[in-house]
Order: sequence, then structure tokens, then C-alpha cells
Amino acid sequence: MNRRDFFLSTAAAGVGAAVLGNALPATAESLDKTPEAKLRLACYWGGLFPAENDQDRIQKMLDMGFEGIELSGDGGGVKDKKQLFEDAGLEVCSLCFGSCGGAIVSEDPSKRQGGIDALKRALENAHYFGAKCVVYVPAFNGQTKLEHLEIRKILLDTLPALGEFAVQCNTHITLEPLNRGEAWFLRQVADGAQIARECNSEGIGVLGDFYHMTTEEPSDMGAFLSGGKYLKHVHLGNGPQPPRRTLPGQDDRPFVDGFRGLKYIGYNRFCSFECGVAGDDKLAEVKKSIAFLRREWDKAEV
Amino acid sequence: MNRRDFFLSTAAAGVGAAVLGNALPATAESLDKTPEAKLRLACYWGGLFPAENDQDRIQKMLDMGFEGIELSGDGGGVKDKKQLFEDAGLEVCSLCFGSCGGAIVSEDPSKRQGGIDALKRALENAHYFGAKCVVYVPAFNGQTKLEHLEIRKILLDTLPALGEFAVQCNTHITLEPLNRGEAWFLRQVADGAQIARECNSEGIGVLGDFYHMTTEEPSDMGAFLSGGKYLKHVHLGNGPQPPRRTLPGQDDRPFVDGFRGLKYIGYNRFCSFECGVAGDDKLAEVKKSIAFLRREWDKAEV
Repeated sequence: MNRRDFFLSTAAAGVGAAVLGNALPATAESLDKTPEAKLRLACYWGGLFPAENDQDRIQKMLDMGFEGIELSGDGGGVKDKKQLFEDAGLEVCSLCFGSCGGAIVSEDPSKRQGGIDALKRALENAHYFGAKCVVYVPAFNGQTKLEHLEIRKILLDTLPALGEFAVQCNTHITLEPLNRGEAWFLRQVADGAQIARECNSEGIGVLGDFYHMTTEEPSDMGAFLSGGKYLKHVHLGNGPQPPRRTLPGQDDRPFVDGFRGLKYIGYNRFCSFECGVAGDDKLAEVKKSIAFLRREWDKAEV
Repeated sequence: MNRRDFFLSTAAAGVGAAVLGNALPATAESLDKTPEAKLRLACYWGGLFPAENDQDRIQKMLDMGFEGIELSGDGGGVKDKKQLFEDAGLEVCSLCFGSCGGAIVSEDPSKRQGGIDALKRALENAHYFGAKCVVYVPAFNGQTKLEHLEIRKILLDTLPALGEFAVQCNTHITLEPLNRGEAWFLRQVADGAQIARECNSEGIGVLGDFYHMTTEEPSDMGAFLSGGKYLKHVHLGNGPQPPRRTLPGQDDRPFVDGFRGLKYIGYNRFCSFECGVAGDDKLAEVKKSIAFLRREWDKAEV
């Protein structure tokens, strides 16, 4: 059977509408360039550069123009700092929840509810902080024995209800595609956006991380356009070659093409550093990186 | 272990450069808008509309502005028509080879060489016709018992050499992403383009088919930008709802956003109808569809 015969036979058999696309929201998004895109920077709390204390850290962030803070885990460990962040005018933009050991997509069904409950707690904490984004990795390599399509099915069965819970918490479950060294399951922004599209819940979105994208995306701009309205968060970092996953500008990984994509979709959510810092004077290096990113942003014409 | 701990542990373990990206060509492509994009139409030989004979079919194609012809299978069945096509000034743009039963990625290693040989014959026939593109589907659902990563590994082991053979034949092996009803293995243009990128052979490319993209792509434009320089062919068809996979314009599936992507990457290869025709007067319907596509093309501003 050649492929045109196959196509005709499946058409004749009525495959198609019955299997495909019925539950999907409007077909491929039509994007219009918008002028409102902004480069709003965030970094995780506590790690990117040294500080003497919380107040010193906050002052340094404000001096460098940071607008947002990303918290590790479910954010539960720093609930006492909410007022501190608010007083400083720094927005908690995201909780980097992670995978909870892959529990939600575990091969052991008895483990899944624990993962769901943990993710719900993170969503509630996001609500507490006013964070618009809970970063979720379905499973790092080795965290589930299930195979690609089985994981995907569990997500499609589970995420829509969790997405509605996220909506109630005024936040988003944001799927993070990683590189294959960390997670084969979800590697590309278009794939994560497609899962979000099929979930058909306003509470499910996708993230793009420049570090992972270096390895996995043939086009940064294409990836962000595929993210489109589902793109709720961006992670900043450079490429996989030494100095691996350090600050943007510490290797020759360009950001213009990706920033073109962000401008094209009118992205004005946060771009948060998730990387290390090469060099001894970390604060000086972060300042240089921010200047580099702002130059790349200005160069990104759409 | 939360995900930042995981990241730090993998960094400490030196995962990264050793696993990732070493063999890849330049990181994410930077695309510049080009003005040279063209909508060049093709259709498969023998099927889209009725004709009294070959000469009548060719005359009708020329009258409608077709510039190209797609051949079924490996093209071996119509080698005698080469002169006829040439005399008419119609370019054979593509051979729709298909999957050869999934032989190249079969779970039975003894079957793979037969698939490789068959694909090589198609590449040789492409050279004979001057066709720039041999459309290849690794496996339709059910054609191999191997699982996602195993199929991918075989392709990465096999395609680079076949790509060099394609270069010698002045053509491209063009991976076709299909919708999940036909092939779960390869569903998105970005994924196919990434395989091509990793093959790092000028002879390996990717295809975008509007019909499949309706189901699988969150953004047509994003998909084509991700295809970028790897995009060697486009298939035209509408969406999966009735009238399923018929002519562009026979349902409400828009083409503007995808055409924006084609213009953005300066695409001037062929767009070939691979679809049925709803309605009794098929020739009239094809003419209407071409007019519709040209309007959509004109509307697609970049």
C-alpha cells in the first residue's frame, strides 16, 4: 500500500473527524503583531548573585531593573516574605514546582493523587503570592516507566480539571519543555502548546526556556510563535556548551530571533533567569547580561 | 529533589555539553524576512480533476497556473512521461514515496535494508525527473513495534548517509509529519525540522501539510518558521471536519497565518494539493480553490 492509497483508505473508512480535532479550540491561531511586548525581567529568589540579606538582595534587584521574582518548589518555604516582596514592588511571577517526582504520570496509579494534591498546593500558594505561573514538568527521564503516549494520555485526562483549579487560583500550570538530557517526554514548545490547546483550559500554558531551546528547537522565533497565547513564562539561560547554562551573553548564543518571536506575539509576561553565573563578580556579570539582553531586545525587529 | 536541585545535580555531574548539542549545526536559526517568497502550485498526477487524456490534463493544469506535478510512490510507474512534462514546462516537484511499510524503522532489522534500497530507488527516480523532493513517512501507526525513541534513533543512524545519497541525486528526503490518526511518531513540523537539523545533511528536510497541521499545530506560522531552511515542500488541504481533507476554501480553515510563515522564511518551493474535492464539478472547484489561495496569499502580510 503506498501512502496515497493509505490516505484514500483511511478517508473511506471515515477516520478523521471522528478521531481528530473535534475537541480542539479554534484551528491554528492567527497571530497579529502587537506593539505591547515588553522585556520584563525576573530571577529566582536567593541564588543568582550574593547579597548580605533580603533587603540588600531586593535593593540590588531594584537597582538592576528586575520586576519579578521566581520561587523554588511550591513557594511554601518563603510565605513569610510576601509582604517584603510587595513592599518592594516586586511581583512573584512564578513558582518553579517541578515534577513532584513524576508522581502525576507514575506507572503506579496509587502515586498519582499525591502528585495532584502537591500541584494543587502549589497552585494555592501561587494564589497566595499572586503568581501567574506554576512551572510543571510532567516527568524527568526515569521518573516514570510509562511510555510517551501513555504519559500524554494521563496528562490529557488529568490537566483539564487541574487547569480549572488553576483558573480559580488566578494562575496557570505552565508546562516546561526540557532538553532530552533531562526529559525526552516534552522537548519542544509547540508540543507543550499543543497539549495546552487540547486541554482547552485557560489554566494550562507552556514555557519556553532558551537554554533547552538551544538544543531542541530549530527556530526560537518559530517556537515562541507556536507558544502563542499559551506562552505564560520564559526562562533565560545560554547554551549547552561551556560555560553551560550560564547568563545570556556569556557565550555566543543569540537572543534576537527569540525576542522577535516574543515581540510578534505581544509577550509581556516575565523572562526569568534560570541559569548559573560564570565569573567571580556575579553581580557585575548579571548587570552585563541584562545590558546584553536589552540590546538584543532592541535589535529584534518584527 | 526539586527541579532546581535536579538542575544543579546534573550540572555538577557534567551532563550537558557531553550529551547535548555537540553535533548540531548553528544554534536556532536567525531568520530574516525575504521578499522572494512565491506561491507555486502543484498537484498530483492523475487525480485532482478529471481529464480526457494526458494532454488535456496538462492543458488544464497550465490554464489554471499550475507549475508543478507530484508523483505517487517512487515515480517509477510514469517514467515514460518525463518528456511530456518537460515539453509542457511542468516541473516534477516531488515523489510521494510514503513509508515503504515502515521497513526502515522496522523492529525486524532484516527488513530495514529493503526499505533503504527502496528509498534509494525513489531518490534515483527523483534525479531522473529532476524532482527536488522525495516525501518520506518513517512509519504509519502500527507499521513498527518500536517505540518513539527507538524509531528516532534508527532515523538518526540511517538518514545522514541517505541524505548524502539524496544530495548526489540533487534532491531531498522530506520527512512528513502526519496527524496522530495516521502517525503518532512524527506530528509536528518543528520535530521533523529538528530531526533534519540533527542529521546535519543538506539532503534531509521536512514538509508541512496544512491538513495535518490543522490538528497538530498550535500555530501554522510558528510551524513554518520552525521548518525554516529545512522546509522543502508543502501539502495543501483543509481541515479534518467534513468535508474532510478537501480543497482549501471548501471549509473555513484559514491559510493566511501559514502563508505569513511561508513569506517570512522566503519559501519559493512548491505547495501541492494533497486532498480530495467536494462537489460535482471538480475542475470548477479547483479553480475556486486556487483563487481562494491566491487571495489568502495576498492577505498574508509579514
